[in-house]
Amino acid sequence: MEVRHRLLNFGDKIIYQDSDWFNFSLDSVILTNFVTIKKNDKIIVDLATGNAPIPMLLTYRTKAKIYGIEIQKEIFELGNKSIIENKFDEQIELINDDVKNLKRHFKDESIDIVTCNPPYFKVEIESLVNENEIKRNARHETLLSLEDVIKEAKRLLKNGGTFALVHRVERLIEVIELMRKYNIEPKKLQLVYSKNHCQAKTILIEGVKNGNEGLKVLEPMIVHNEKGEYNKEIKKMFEE
Amino acid sequence: MEVRHRLLNFGDKIIYQDSDWFNFSLDSVILTNFVTIKKNDKIIVDLATGNAPIPMLLTYRTKAKIYGIEIQKEIFELGNKSIIENKFDEQIELINDDVKNLKRHFKDESIDIVTCNPPYFKVEIESLVNENEIKRNARHETLLSLEDVIKEAKRLLKNGGTFALVHRVERLIEVIELMRKYNIEPKKLQLVYSKNHCQAKTILIEGVKNGNEGLKVLEPMIVHNEKGEYNKEIKKMFEE
Repeated sequence: MEVRHRLLNFGDKIIYQDSDWFNFSLDSVILTNFVTIKKNDKIIVDLATGNAPIPMLLTYRTKAKIYGIEIQKEIFELGNKSIIENKFDEQIELINDDVKNLKRHFKDESIDIVTCNPPYFKVEIESLVNENEIKRNARHETLLSLEDVIKEAKRLLKNGGTFALVHRVERLIEVIELMRKYNIEPKKLQLVYSKNHCQAKTILIEGVKNGNEGLKVLEPMIVHNEKGEYNKEIKKMFEE
Repeated sequence: MEVRHRLLNFGDKIIYQDSDWFNFSLDSVILTNFVTIKKNDKIIVDLATGNAPIPMLLTYRTKAKIYGIEIQKEIFELGNKSIIENKFDEQIELINDDVKNLKRHFKDESIDIVTCNPPYFKVEIESLVNENEIKRNARHETLLSLEDVIKEAKRLLKNGGTFALVHRVERLIEVIELMRKYNIEPKKLQLVYSKNHCQAKTILIEGVKNGNEGLKVLEPMIVHNEKGEYNKEIKKMFEE
């Protein structure tokens, strides 16, 4: 059932995933590359971590302690297997619990950075019938809504702490409103385009808890060239 | 004092402006190109129209009646002069009044499209000393705030009517929040970059009064190529 999947940017590292559930996606790679990490940042929490791609990729950028939270036991176990095999278990700790229960594990305002690649889709009857339960929960807001994520990020983050999220462009307005509602001021935005001359598909957004107003929009990220290959800047992320 | 300024996209038309006050900018050109105009749209109002570049440029896209509102008498007169000389006076009518007084001129919910290239900058003591009064009022929110613009757009627009705005990227979050506050749902966004590999400078945003959720982000607009010349898509706007 399990598939051994070797990733370019993992060099000799291995990540376990199961295509029946979902595949580790480019979105985790670009979010890990996008998030601002300061020298003094000591604790990072990745919400809805899945099979833990973001915690594992973050080890290439920081020595901070990284926690990943995953509610689904099967995926949590897959993540743990990769972490142990790759000897990341000193830096990364996975927690098998609901994001809404995180107050059992972390004090308020104790975390420097919160990251999240959340379930993207609202729950609609139609979308629920074609997928198995594990995949459905990873892709749809059945167990965790966008507001749950941002509310919990606010509670966890220190004053001045950083929240970084990847999401679909259709949800941008809602993301901004919720960040503001929970006092996380949007400071950095990047639009991700599948190729040139098309509409944006994905957003990367970062905010600072209790931060001042003033948004920067980074250069557009174009994922594929005209041949359908990854562009240089994307390839570079896999080489680091 | 007045400068005759011949614009590429005006062919044999002339626009009067005075460099001591401000110059007709690219922002008016790209906003005119960006706004969605439907076949049945009959009345357009351009708020804070300045020397009326947007009404004049819109004549190339529509037969709708276009009103421009400008509070500063000197600039209003300059706009009127161009409109008469170019024989646009059947299609365009300028009104010399405060946007906040528009209920004297238009009924509630009577307009199909509202456009605006507003004063971009918040009022700060420092910024007020280096400019003459006319230029200052055109560039800073001394007489008209962003909220005034959006509040008035909401009052003017029919149900389902279109609001299109050009603004600075730093104000994007505020623009989105105010549009939502006044029931104008953001539907289309485009980021404008001065050149490749730099941060976005300008936003084009369009919303629909009482519209459904669902934002599209168009392909990035890159204004200049590496030689500093206008890119093809910008040149095309001047050729139409």
